[in-house]
Amino acid sequence: MKLLIKNVYIPGKDGKAVKAKNIEITGNRISAFPKHPDVSQYDQIIEGKGKLALPGLVNTHTHVAMTLFRSYADDMELMDWLQNKIWPAENRLNDDIVYWGSTLAFAEMIRGGTTSFCDMYMFMNSCAKAAAQAGIRGNIARGLAGVSPNAQSALQENIDLFEQWDGACDGRIRVMLGPHAPYTCPPDYLKQVRDAAITHHIPIHIHLAETRTEVENCEKEYGMTPIALMDHVGLFDVPVLAAHCVHVNDKDIAIMAEKGVRVAHNPGSNLKLASGIAPVLAMRKAGITVGLGTDGASSNNKLDMFAEMRLAALIHKAVSYNPKAIEAGEALDMATREGAKCLGYDDLGELREGWLADIILIDRSGFNWKPDFNDVSITVYAANSRDVDTVIINGKPVMINKELLTIDTERLDFEVNRVVKELYGGLE
Amino acid sequence: MKLLIKNVYIPGKDGKAVKAKNIEITGNRISAFPKHPDVSQYDQIIEGKGKLALPGLVNTHTHVAMTLFRSYADDMELMDWLQNKIWPAENRLNDDIVYWGSTLAFAEMIRGGTTSFCDMYMFMNSCAKAAAQAGIRGNIARGLAGVSPNAQSALQENIDLFEQWDGACDGRIRVMLGPHAPYTCPPDYLKQVRDAAITHHIPIHIHLAETRTEVENCEKEYGMTPIALMDHVGLFDVPVLAAHCVHVNDKDIAIMAEKGVRVAHNPGSNLKLASGIAPVLAMRKAGITVGLGTDGASSNNKLDMFAEMRLAALIHKAVSYNPKAIEAGEALDMATREGAKCLGYDDLGELREGWLADIILIDRSGFNWKPDFNDVSITVYAANSRDVDTVIINGKPVMINKELLTIDTERLDFEVNRVVKELYGGLE
Repeated sequence: MKLLIKNVYIPGKDGKAVKAKNIEITGNRISAFPKHPDVSQYDQIIEGKGKLALPGLVNTHTHVAMTLFRSYADDMELMDWLQNKIWPAENRLNDDIVYWGSTLAFAEMIRGGTTSFCDMYMFMNSCAKAAAQAGIRGNIARGLAGVSPNAQSALQENIDLFEQWDGACDGRIRVMLGPHAPYTCPPDYLKQVRDAAITHHIPIHIHLAETRTEVENCEKEYGMTPIALMDHVGLFDVPVLAAHCVHVNDKDIAIMAEKGVRVAHNPGSNLKLASGIAPVLAMRKAGITVGLGTDGASSNNKLDMFAEMRLAALIHKAVSYNPKAIEAGEALDMATREGAKCLGYDDLGELREGWLADIILIDRSGFNWKPDFNDVSITVYAANSRDVDTVIINGKPVMINKELLTIDTERLDFEVNRVVKELYGGLE
Repeated sequence: MKLLIKNVYIPGKDGKAVKAKNIEITGNRISAFPKHPDVSQYDQIIEGKGKLALPGLVNTHTHVAMTLFRSYADDMELMDWLQNKIWPAENRLNDDIVYWGSTLAFAEMIRGGTTSFCDMYMFMNSCAKAAAQAGIRGNIARGLAGVSPNAQSALQENIDLFEQWDGACDGRIRVMLGPHAPYTCPPDYLKQVRDAAITHHIPIHIHLAETRTEVENCEKEYGMTPIALMDHVGLFDVPVLAAHCVHVNDKDIAIMAEKGVRVAHNPGSNLKLASGIAPVLAMRKAGITVGLGTDGASSNNKLDMFAEMRLAALIHKAVSYNPKAIEAGEALDMATREGAKCLGYDDLGELREGWLADIILIDRSGFNWKPDFNDVSITVYAANSRDVDTVIINGKPVMINKELLTIDTERLDFEVNRVVKELYGGLE
């Protein structure tokens, strides 16, 4: 399968896109930027005239099926929210509900230019099936709570998920182990997870240092910060993607840098849950790879990586009183190449010959794009996720001219209505 | 002229919209919510089936023609940005350029559900003409710099603007006096502006306490904070809308509350320029009216009140570690009724019988609206400005089904390209 995208603009190092280019895709990779392509050579041609081509956006931390909890419970204290709203509803999830909640998330993400996600949740076979169908790239993990009665079976389930799905769909689907957090996974369990990670060569996705309370309790119980505790139990001996890292100190950051821990920064969720603002400047300065994520739709409440890019570029300027803190190009990097590194890819997140072909085309005809002196500035500060026009993942078009190709949106509407009734029937 | 909007949903106090309603508009006001309207009685009927009706959004602080500086210069130190980029370009503005820059802003704002703006800038006759044509509601002021050679003529220009435009277009256009800021307007000049405000009954729009540097310099020069200085020169004896108020202390807040100073909070701009985060919770607790604004497109870089609502709801939660800090309904209030109060209206910003008919209809068919348990939550946290479908200002439709009715968008494209060439020709 050979695909040609014609006449797109690609931003240069200075953010300014000045030259129309053609992008050739062979299989799932970018194979050339031909100046004078022979159109008879291609199975499919996408006209990109006037559009901007960017690497697809990478959502490094989310819980996709939680779209079904969107707007169900907002502006609440964390424990009240979890105990009285989220957990009772989560108890009712099943394979069917998670399949459609995931598909809703993929529709929303693809519509907004997100081509990869990283998930940790339940009924992950359903999530994988939905991702396979939607054509989106994703790293999935079974959320593991060591304190739960199903701690052992969930770990086995996660390993089975790895055996069944890792590398599936032409490499699009990858599997990670998902120990939930230090406050739900005691050290012994974390060691068990780490051992499984070593045995099966599975990377880990975990929530770390999200709230002040978590850090305080961890210090009280173990005399160490969550980061130091993870280091102590040997978790960082395997590749780890740590979500949040809002409350990390200089020592924590030094450990994370030394051990190559990658971070999923979720500015919208951290603000909405009043967790705080992660020290992203310090982490990046220490050489830590930081990607961006939306977290679940229940704490955001959308899966819009344009909104997260803008937030990441804005909030760190204000808290550091430095207008150059995270420049537009850095925010875009975090949402693309750095995000791809968080997911374990070293050949994703740039429009580069030989790299994986996850590409989005952006319609620049909106008023928010006028005038356009710098495409990267506008992408980060002024663009709207609805400006995304065409999405290609792993070499295959999944949206063209704003029309989703892999998801039947009428059926999606029907099924979401159906599973929402099932999920909430009888709950207040 | 009688208009009927049929079958829309209006959110109740709890944010949940459950009942379809009809809205009747007579002239420029909401005249009834008829249960069984006689359709033969109306000059125009807008079908709103399934759509959400909200009061139009009020942008309480912007510089509309600065759309022409969008993406021209970002991620720079404030003085470098102003001296080397913005001011040289601003020197080239003229009536024609400001007319089209303003029209671009109105197109963007109406497209995104903003029905009122509050501007302070130059060539304001052109801004007023553009607003008159676009059908948008606006308070306009001539920016006044007391330190400038044109200080006296600009003040006279602002008074002339008031005589010519205040109350024009069926009351849509209002005029304010626009002393720029304490650091550009010495006390004697501010007294002169205040005297003019008293003589002609004109309210004032001013930038106050935007940066730490401004406050420090003011304290050095006058031994007072900017707020205390304004109080001292008697500026607060007339109605004042103060933009920013990022660096105000408890004493300042007490003065502002006592004097009825209203505040335009610009979260996006304050973050982008690394000014800081305004103490909105303390100001609101003191009873101060706080609206939301985008500031100019050069420091935002879009005029999207949905983005500002979300930011306002999010950032104050994190800095106060309180997930209930600004709830969704409060953010929506700030963007509607509170914003209208900032502009001097007490009959705008709610869908209420007898109140002015600035109404937006929102298309809830996007994935970001599913599921929809709470329309206000989704409006603030998950909605996209592109969800706005229909806009009515002062009783007149200016956008129906996403089509602008008062602005020729093809001509706008052409003219914006033309004036941008004129504005930047020869500049680096």
